[in-house]
Amino acid sequence: MHIGLVGLGKMGGNMRTRMRNAGLTVVGYDRDQELSDVASLDDLVRQLPDDAPKVVWIMVPHGDPTHATVDALADLLGEGDVVVDGGNSRWTDDELHAEQLSERGIGYVDCGVSGGVWGLENGYALMAGGSAEDVAKVQPAFDALRPGPEEGFVHAGRVGAGHFSKMVHNGIEYAMMQAYAEGFELLEKSDIVDNVTEVFDSWRVGTVVRSWLLDLLVKAMQDDPGLSQIRGYAEDSGEGRWTVEAAIDNAVPVHTIAAALFARFTSRQDESPAMQAVAAMRQQFGGHAVRATQESPDVPPATA
Amino acid sequence: MHIGLVGLGKMGGNMRTRMRNAGLTVVGYDRDQELSDVASLDDLVRQLPDDAPKVVWIMVPHGDPTHATVDALADLLGEGDVVVDGGNSRWTDDELHAEQLSERGIGYVDCGVSGGVWGLENGYALMAGGSAEDVAKVQPAFDALRPGPEEGFVHAGRVGAGHFSKMVHNGIEYAMMQAYAEGFELLEKSDIVDNVTEVFDSWRVGTVVRSWLLDLLVKAMQDDPGLSQIRGYAEDSGEGRWTVEAAIDNAVPVHTIAAALFARFTSRQDESPAMQAVAAMRQQFGGHAVRATQESPDVPPATA
Amino acid sequence: MHIGLVGLGKMGGNMRTRMRNAGLTVVGYDRDQELSDVASLDDLVRQLPDDAPKVVWIMVPHGDPTHATVDALADLLGEGDVVVDGGNSRWTDDELHAEQLSERGIGYVDCGVSGGVWGLENGYALMAGGSAEDVAKVQPAFDALRPGPEEGFVHAGRVGAGHFSKMVHNGIEYAMMQAYAEGFELLEKSDIVDNVTEVFDSWRVGTVVRSWLLDLLVKAMQDDPGLSQIRGYAEDSGEGRWTVEAAIDNAVPVHTIAAALFARFTSRQDESPAMQAVAAMRQQFGGHAVRATQESPDVPPATA
Amino acid sequence: MHIGLVGLGKMGGNMRTRMRNAGLTVVGYDRDQELSDVASLDDLVRQLPDDAPKVVWIMVPHGDPTHATVDALADLLGEGDVVVDGGNSRWTDDELHAEQLSERGIGYVDCGVSGGVWGLENGYALMAGGSAEDVAKVQPAFDALRPGPEEGFVHAGRVGAGHFSKMVHNGIEYAMMQAYAEGFELLEKSDIVDNVTEVFDSWRVGTVVRSWLLDLLVKAMQDDPGLSQIRGYAEDSGEGRWTVEAAIDNAVPVHTIAAALFARFTSRQDESPAMQAVAAMRQQFGGHAVRATQESPDVPPATA
Repeated sequence: MHIGLVGLGKMGGNMRTRMRNAGLTVVGYDRDQELSDVASLDDLVRQLPDDAPKVVWIMVPHGDPTHATVDALADLLGEGDVVVDGGNSRWTDDELHAEQLSERGIGYVDCGVSGGVWGLENGYALMAGGSAEDVAKVQPAFDALRPGPEEGFVHAGRVGAGHFSKMVHNGIEYAMMQAYAEGFELLEKSDIVDNVTEVFDSWRVGTVVRSWLLDLLVKAMQDDPGLSQIRGYAEDSGEGRWTVEAAIDNAVPVHTIAAALFARFTSRQDESPAMQAVAAMRQQFGGHAVRATQESPDVPPATA
Repeated sequence: MHIGLVGLGKMGGNMRTRMRNAGLTVVGYDRDQELSDVASLDDLVRQLPDDAPKVVWIMVPHGDPTHATVDALADLLGEGDVVVDGGNSRWTDDELHAEQLSERGIGYVDCGVSGGVWGLENGYALMAGGSAEDVAKVQPAFDALRPGPEEGFVHAGRVGAGHFSKMVHNGIEYAMMQAYAEGFELLEKSDIVDNVTEVFDSWRVGTVVRSWLLDLLVKAMQDDPGLSQIRGYAEDSGEGRWTVEAAIDNAVPVHTIAAALFARFTSRQDESPAMQAVAAMRQQFGGHAVRATQESPDVPPATA
Repeated sequence: MHIGLVGLGKMGGNMRTRMRNAGLTVVGYDRDQELSDVASLDDLVRQLPDDAPKVVWIMVPHGDPTHATVDALADLLGEGDVVVDGGNSRWTDDELHAEQLSERGIGYVDCGVSGGVWGLENGYALMAGGSAEDVAKVQPAFDALRPGPEEGFVHAGRVGAGHFSKMVHNGIEYAMMQAYAEGFELLEKSDIVDNVTEVFDSWRVGTVVRSWLLDLLVKAMQDDPGLSQIRGYAEDSGEGRWTVEAAIDNAVPVHTIAAALFARFTSRQDESPAMQAVAAMRQQFGGHAVRATQESPDVPPATA
Repeated sequence: MHIGLVGLGKMGGNMRTRMRNAGLTVVGYDRDQELSDVASLDDLVRQLPDDAPKVVWIMVPHGDPTHATVDALADLLGEGDVVVDGGNSRWTDDELHAEQLSERGIGYVDCGVSGGVWGLENGYALMAGGSAEDVAKVQPAFDALRPGPEEGFVHAGRVGAGHFSKMVHNGIEYAMMQAYAEGFELLEKSDIVDNVTEVFDSWRVGTVVRSWLLDLLVKAMQDDPGLSQIRGYAEDSGEGRWTVEAAIDNAVPVHTIAAALFARFTSRQDESPAMQAVAAMRQQFGGHAVRATQESPDVPPATA
């Protein structure tokens, strides 16, 4: 199979390597000519053979970069070709992209990709959305990228279902990470347990909480005991937010996923306006002491 | 009515004044002789007339100070007298104190007191627990302290019911404060609203969220626009914690009260071990950049 | 002042009455001719005098009904006139409506309205968004509707700021209601408090949690002791959901507001798929008994 | 090594087998004579050789059964012997048991045990608390029970540290299960994904959320598509509650663990008093329709 691959960053570059290792002919394009196999998107499309449906896999940031790439491919591809969006697009973008391309007869498949820096070696878990016909045209690429022949791939449903599934995966991931994190803090804060790292390490075999995330956390704790070299600051990507929004749209209570997302928001704040308001109310009703941002005399506490 | 009052801090002192204004004869004792009417607890009890049940109201910090005062009064009082604990004791302590005193024939009433620095002028809301007979002996004091003849007092149930009710009151208070606080932060963060103070002020009349807490928050915002003089740091007293514990004992889901309590815990942390763990996991699986506590090169982000 | 009012349901009808009581000339239109003063929107606009800016207040459901009304008024009004949307539109709709109308030189003001069934008598709290010029044209109507001359009205900011403020108000309202509700359940479940209604009633004066919502809850509890006549089923309107979405957009942690929203979702479920999954996992790892939807033998529990 | 084992239920019975398979001489006692090797606890102790410290492992329900067994062993054992509590006791009980036994010179080790019905075959993860000397006396038993020579065992700290670690493990487990459960519900509710079971199955390899719990959930979903045979009803054991209580004691925010615990509480309610209160307030302020427990006319909704 021949395939075009747009976006050769860390993820895209590794995926190109894994597909080539599996025997596929991959033409990669990146704005960075050092990484790129061809000079332009135009060239990329031209190098795909005409006697088969052309498949172009997009691996660029979601939002404007993906929109622009879809726009360009809409002009370059034709009837029966297929575009795959393997980036982190929101599933609602998939519906727009699919409609836009279908006006030219071009098929569309969205694909959530999990695997990170381990994917090159271990394979990528793939969740695809689209028509059976379009998915079939991309199947050799999916088979090259997935971890093994019977695993790590699902055709989840119609267009959008791939990214939707990957989004929910990430929402679950947020809450799982927060679960371990809360347990870690409790063990650290309590004075009863001497060696938190060893406790976590002992959980890696035979327990209910064993997982790959636990393995990673233990590795981090072994590298940096007490995690003293790292700040408690966590970004969030779109998927966590979108999961909560999709849950709201579907009236699904997602207490733990939302709490995990909010904990990341809090982690990035130097000051919490909400807690300033709480402190202000306490001072007002009870004369409770507040901590001033400037020097000021504390007011003695009172019952309220 | 004659009454003994132990503990003449801000709360106790104001309560003495309010009871005296209502015509009660109050003998107050405090370890601080500047505040005290008598030299000792012994003196206090001696000054209460012998021809009526002696009522002694304790207004000292919960835990050891209250235990010690109950111990002392168990020796000084006798059959038919009544001890009132108006401090912030946990309801489970009430059961112990009542049993201890009943061995000497001394009655026991627990009383949750709300009102803070406004109580002297506006009266105190009172929630009492104990037998009808014991509560009746204290009723003149309750009537002097309460805001008005038909309001702000309840005989909530048996011993412990007063402090239990006050505890739940405070749990509700935590979540209400957090509700306003979250709304404040959202208005502050969004760029669409120009004057957050005026918006909150407009809510004070005619809206569903109008309340005394809202009045206080608006006052704080008017005194200190943007609450820029106050840090987002909030202590918690025992009642918030006990409310969540009582909820767990009774299998009651208290999502908002617990969240408000946890937000206060977070507000007092310089560093969050939990979020250090989240950051560590993100770095492990995706090569996501972390913020180091020491200088270190960032690792570029990756998809996971 | 003359004003047109579109939508004469419970809210709109009461607002017409209150404005008329304040001396305004109100021309009301409703699809229901029984309620309507005029036969058509066309008639409504014609009856407004030409020698002053025409002001038309929309009071119809948000979404399509409001869109359609704005569309129609865009054709009927002209330079210098003003449309007010007093319904429950999302603030993002306001930006679209304002832009649409500005193409014809028509001004736009959004207004969040609080007050419910009490508004006719007590006045409505109003939060307005728009230019100072446009707001000024509507001011006599605001003054007629608001509770009093110095209260219950705010010009919150640019277009959208009114509905945004009202949305946050409702988000706070959700969490406050949940706070009282959790406290109610805890008092009900614990066997220590005899009379929950009286406890809540005692909080109405002198406590930190006193509020109008508390007054309402006490009234409901007095009418229906133990709330035994009412099911624990609660709808949610758009504002609660939008508040959480706006919080996510602004990276604001809203633990209590989201928890209150999710509790409403749960209240409407006959079965919880999430808890089915939890039960399924427990059964798998520990042989914990599950409750079958059909008759089936329980598996004895085990440690895990 | 010789060891006494008290309690031969599903867990204890399997542990006896696993220790015997590893070459230990195990004398088991159970109140059920069908299961028991000896007629009494007395007999059990007598059968342990006198020329080495006697080790007796308790595997009975926490609380009174464990207290009673410790009481009995305090009379039967002597200087240098060791009692191991491998049940689900709260860590605070360990401190009491250790002190009680130390008065007779008897050592004490607490041991959290994970593994459930898979433990016989795969081994049990063990978290031990106690002095190094006491732990050493039990080590051959730990080595027989653990999954492998370098894994699944930790000496976590002083007495109590074993059960504390196991408790935190279970708290994490609650939140992880809830995380998957929320994701399951969102995929089920959304109409975009066709085959939820296949999506979860695809996550088992190569993704961030892969884990043993995920394997179990997929197995449950494959056995019972849509989990339609199982009710969304989940018990909770002591450890989840104790984790939240320990977190409160240590001022650790545990948003996801508490939310997972509360979700189980909710899952067991036929009616939610909290949501009855929310419905009652909505009806009061807005005339919102409520669902009556008896037939009653609905009131039309209104804005508030």
